[in-house]
Amino acid sequence: MSSPDSIAVVGVSGYTGFELAKLLLRHPAGSAATFYMRDTQGAHCLSELFPQLRGTNRAPVRQLSVENILASGAKTAFLATPHEASSELAPQLLDAGLKVIDLSGAFRFRDAAVFQSWYKLPAPHAAWLASAVYGLPEFYSAELVNAQLVANPGCYATSVILAVRPLAQAGLLESNSSVVADCKSGATGAGKELRRDLHFSELDENFKAYNLFSHRHTPEIVEQTGLADSQLTFTTHLLPIARGILSTIYVMLAEPQTPEAIEALYRKTYAGRPMVRIWKAGTLPEIQHVAHTNFADIGFTIDRSGRKLIIVSCLDNLGKGAAGQAVQNFNHLLKLEEHTGLQ
Amino acid sequence: MSSPDSIAVVGVSGYTGFELAKLLLRHPAGSAATFYMRDTQGAHCLSELFPQLRGTNRAPVRQLSVENILASGAKTAFLATPHEASSELAPQLLDAGLKVIDLSGAFRFRDAAVFQSWYKLPAPHAAWLASAVYGLPEFYSAELVNAQLVANPGCYATSVILAVRPLAQAGLLESNSSVVADCKSGATGAGKELRRDLHFSELDENFKAYNLFSHRHTPEIVEQTGLADSQLTFTTHLLPIARGILSTIYVMLAEPQTPEAIEALYRKTYAGRPMVRIWKAGTLPEIQHVAHTNFADIGFTIDRSGRKLIIVSCLDNLGKGAAGQAVQNFNHLLKLEEHTGLQ
Amino acid sequence: MSSPDSIAVVGVSGYTGFELAKLLLRHPAGSAATFYMRDTQGAHCLSELFPQLRGTNRAPVRQLSVENILASGAKTAFLATPHEASSELAPQLLDAGLKVIDLSGAFRFRDAAVFQSWYKLPAPHAAWLASAVYGLPEFYSAELVNAQLVANPGCYATSVILAVRPLAQAGLLESNSSVVADCKSGATGAGKELRRDLHFSELDENFKAYNLFSHRHTPEIVEQTGLADSQLTFTTHLLPIARGILSTIYVMLAEPQTPEAIEALYRKTYAGRPMVRIWKAGTLPEIQHVAHTNFADIGFTIDRSGRKLIIVSCLDNLGKGAAGQAVQNFNHLLKLEEHTGLQ
Amino acid sequence: MSSPDSIAVVGVSGYTGFELAKLLLRHPAGSAATFYMRDTQGAHCLSELFPQLRGTNRAPVRQLSVENILASGAKTAFLATPHEASSELAPQLLDAGLKVIDLSGAFRFRDAAVFQSWYKLPAPHAAWLASAVYGLPEFYSAELVNAQLVANPGCYATSVILAVRPLAQAGLLESNSSVVADCKSGATGAGKELRRDLHFSELDENFKAYNLFSHRHTPEIVEQTGLADSQLTFTTHLLPIARGILSTIYVMLAEPQTPEAIEALYRKTYAGRPMVRIWKAGTLPEIQHVAHTNFADIGFTIDRSGRKLIIVSCLDNLGKGAAGQAVQNFNHLLKLEEHTGLQ
Repeated sequence: MSSPDSIAVVGVSGYTGFELAKLLLRHPAGSAATFYMRDTQGAHCLSELFPQLRGTNRAPVRQLSVENILASGAKTAFLATPHEASSELAPQLLDAGLKVIDLSGAFRFRDAAVFQSWYKLPAPHAAWLASAVYGLPEFYSAELVNAQLVANPGCYATSVILAVRPLAQAGLLESNSSVVADCKSGATGAGKELRRDLHFSELDENFKAYNLFSHRHTPEIVEQTGLADSQLTFTTHLLPIARGILSTIYVMLAEPQTPEAIEALYRKTYAGRPMVRIWKAGTLPEIQHVAHTNFADIGFTIDRSGRKLIIVSCLDNLGKGAAGQAVQNFNHLLKLEEHTGLQ
Repeated sequence: MSSPDSIAVVGVSGYTGFELAKLLLRHPAGSAATFYMRDTQGAHCLSELFPQLRGTNRAPVRQLSVENILASGAKTAFLATPHEASSELAPQLLDAGLKVIDLSGAFRFRDAAVFQSWYKLPAPHAAWLASAVYGLPEFYSAELVNAQLVANPGCYATSVILAVRPLAQAGLLESNSSVVADCKSGATGAGKELRRDLHFSELDENFKAYNLFSHRHTPEIVEQTGLADSQLTFTTHLLPIARGILSTIYVMLAEPQTPEAIEALYRKTYAGRPMVRIWKAGTLPEIQHVAHTNFADIGFTIDRSGRKLIIVSCLDNLGKGAAGQAVQNFNHLLKLEEHTGLQ
Repeated sequence: MSSPDSIAVVGVSGYTGFELAKLLLRHPAGSAATFYMRDTQGAHCLSELFPQLRGTNRAPVRQLSVENILASGAKTAFLATPHEASSELAPQLLDAGLKVIDLSGAFRFRDAAVFQSWYKLPAPHAAWLASAVYGLPEFYSAELVNAQLVANPGCYATSVILAVRPLAQAGLLESNSSVVADCKSGATGAGKELRRDLHFSELDENFKAYNLFSHRHTPEIVEQTGLADSQLTFTTHLLPIARGILSTIYVMLAEPQTPEAIEALYRKTYAGRPMVRIWKAGTLPEIQHVAHTNFADIGFTIDRSGRKLIIVSCLDNLGKGAAGQAVQNFNHLLKLEEHTGLQ
Repeated sequence: MSSPDSIAVVGVSGYTGFELAKLLLRHPAGSAATFYMRDTQGAHCLSELFPQLRGTNRAPVRQLSVENILASGAKTAFLATPHEASSELAPQLLDAGLKVIDLSGAFRFRDAAVFQSWYKLPAPHAAWLASAVYGLPEFYSAELVNAQLVANPGCYATSVILAVRPLAQAGLLESNSSVVADCKSGATGAGKELRRDLHFSELDENFKAYNLFSHRHTPEIVEQTGLADSQLTFTTHLLPIARGILSTIYVMLAEPQTPEAIEALYRKTYAGRPMVRIWKAGTLPEIQHVAHTNFADIGFTIDRSGRKLIIVSCLDNLGKGAAGQAVQNFNHLLKLEEHTGLQ
């Protein structure tokens, strides 16, 4: 790959953007990346801002503006920005012909009303919503080939959808029974902005639930699994660790199933998908198995009745839950192998 | 309380026993405690074995034997021993007329078959099972007054029963719907014995589920809440912290309820019970609110339909989940205020 | 102690003030404490602001003003305030006849120039500097009896002074050799104000040195040990834990000493001082031995030459390093046993 | 690099060996690696033993025996084994003509008496001691070209030597003044064997010093810096984190120096050495800057007198402190760029 097309990466000051920068610096197409920030603090390359990066590749930094991005000749832009910023930036870049991989929630819904209801913002980009491809490549690889706009999924949503969608699509779920997704995430998932509950002395040795019945990843999960709104109970918790999500998911099956049948269903769904790993029936992944990787691991146990199924789904919220998945989507746009630069 | 009766405390080498020792050393009746160990390592008092205790009260240590305990004139014995040891020790002490507070699972079930099935051991102490009082003082204070044998509840079980039993007793639960108790505990709950998954470098930055459909606290919860076996789904997880349990409990109500009604039910159930704190509807306790205390905190949220209820129940696994609750039971035996020495 | 004199406690919103509140609520004289805050948020008692405290004693909260404190009839005031606030409040309370225990650095130096040079502030309270007693009760118990103003020592300073002063006073230190105090503290010592380096995801799994050659506890250590300025090298580090300080202190002895002689010196110095525990020569305390206590633990090792001495000094930065020591000083003012309410 | 020579890697069950495996699986020459274990548990490749590795390259596992290694045609062997095992294995492999990179302490000293005195073992391999190259490539790259046996340095030793040797070689140290190296390491440095002080509940929220005046890395540091035995004071501490070493090093300079001069000395020493990063005078690296990398970072501060110098040296104990450095040495043997596979 002698001279890769230029890439624009917006928003490296947060944890997701920084992870994306680190992944792209190791990616064969990443040498062509330029990093855009609102405030460059006079820096010319990322290693001036992040001492961790000194001695690795150079990574040019520029003042963020649509003009600067367009002038650079970039063919693809990653937006690791809040949904408010993405809502503004993406349409301008798309109109200029760039491909956009957006890591915020701004383009994850087909229906503008869903976005407005959960994000409390107008959806001026409604024209683009219909065309956005939900960037879960295990299910949308066909659509990704010609996508101009990719809406990278939420971290919790990825972990739940990968576990539940195969069961829902196969019609195995009892229809009038709740799916309970009890999810736990490390602190980088809550962002880099200073906050009382993220102060070290508050989170250390602590654990808590938050945003019950109100987390913004709820509508993504509903839309992508096909569950009814009322069928999903989705709860999030904050773990005193930096990275990783573990979701414990409780479903009631319409008919008794064997462990072998469930395992076979998952294996068939994810055959040829290197970033999802299915565990042997009765064995369960832990956060340590996926931290600092782009893997999503799925394990499960069924009770003796064959109808109660508990699935444990793990991923790294910055990896498969955000930046890693963005790179995986990028690989699809470039028609590279989907795990390029991710192992 | 000029000259308290002598107390025997067995098994201070584990985390629960050590916590019990610290609580008793601050308790008005604790100056009369003698601590029994299988291997005293030549020590005469606890501070020789635990430097943390140096400079506090003296706490005599003796070689464990039934003879030594009986010779000491002890009126009450705490057994912070594994259920195998408790099964052997308790009957001998009881036969000699002592009162026994047992912190293991040996005497928690009325039905010997339940014990045998979950603990894979014969129940030679069957004669004592019927007379044992389940040591959850919020529900058994009347029985505790004259109890000779108190079976101190499991840590997870306490956290789930306190949250679910009021709802079950009031007949609010939809009968054919699962109660899901997704519970998370700090590492002291897993004990002091060296184990691969408790090695610092393995648990640090990790989180995992364990013992799905098979945790030994399951039958306690079933028996004490009156749920059907098949109605309860109880799952346990290991948190990378030392102390604390947070249980997220999902129930479906038979009829829609208001938050006010649920809060009122909890407040009425625990009126006059100082160690259970009910949170205002819609607010949730965290582990930091109960760590290093004997409180159990209960908060909840209901969805708009009024039928989906999520309860968050927190306690310190060594406090209200074990040693603190044992002291609370002891206070009942002594007819002291139940929070004596626990604040 | 039927009707204790009224106490004013200023500044409970920080970690030190909150610890002080918890200690006073367990203290025999603490039932008479009123808590003053700049912003009471409409609360009438501490438990409305700190759910951890619900169900414990009531603890009245009032709007902070000198008038309110004077009107309350308080005889003693604790100031858990920054040095700027203490500089202003203390003189007014002292002039009105109250006794003041100040936990800031405002009154720790006899020489106003030292304060100005290190704290970059005028010392308008110079008139009070001379009369302030440095609140290290192991060395100033005689002065504390009649003190009106107590300057509670810094946390790091306490840990270093307790270890070095006995050696310096006995003339054992080689005069032209550095004393190196390499100190490590948990994050509550850095305060509750939100700060990038105290954000959970930044400090978790991290460790760093800070304020080399410039930490404000330096002049306290110099003044209280009698070391020459140039003789002390004092370095501070931030540990990814909540509580505790461990100081590793390197001294060169003028003449070879036996371990027994050093241990005897420490034991003699701290005879009858219950809050300092001397470890057997060659054994070393750890943070776990002092966390959540008011103890300072001192251990040491000497090399074969008998001239290189390494001392390990541990305490809880919120206990003996701040709030606990303030209560210890308070006990001296009240002529109570110095460990009252601290075990 | 079409068909790299075969590599044997011994001892992947520990943390160092596992890290080495992960590095080699990403290394261009690593596809030719075979992994040898005493007990393969019936596994044929690493991912059967380590679920983290599933979905990455295959990595064949074989029963450890010298015969198996020789039969494989391996040209190079890594020994991530305890020094007892390395002492036995290395000579047999060397005699058969393999190159050996040993990660234990068995071959780090020129003088067999030093080894015997610190490791309490005979040095039967004395014939090989003289020929072993100390694998600190920043100083021994010339010797590495033709080395048959590389003794990979200790983790603490690497961090101290990189900081002190340039000053010592330049004659800047005051000769009769101590060099104090106060070092702190994460728990993986203490190994994977279960141990009371490495049990999660013991190390969590704890911090301690250990092995004062007796750590086995002492003689390496003395030999490689040229300090006199009595001049070095080297102390180790255990941090409640998984990975990373931070050494705070105190030296007295013979003559006053400017910060610029010290920085220039370090920059000159490590010019062209990509794995050592020198920080601007007055700025200091933290563990987060080097964790999960092969970098060693060095920063420092000088006091106003220009004679007291404090150096902070950071690295990842599994990276530059062990497995990463072994790969760096391997690159020298292969005449690859020294950071190949390490960024």
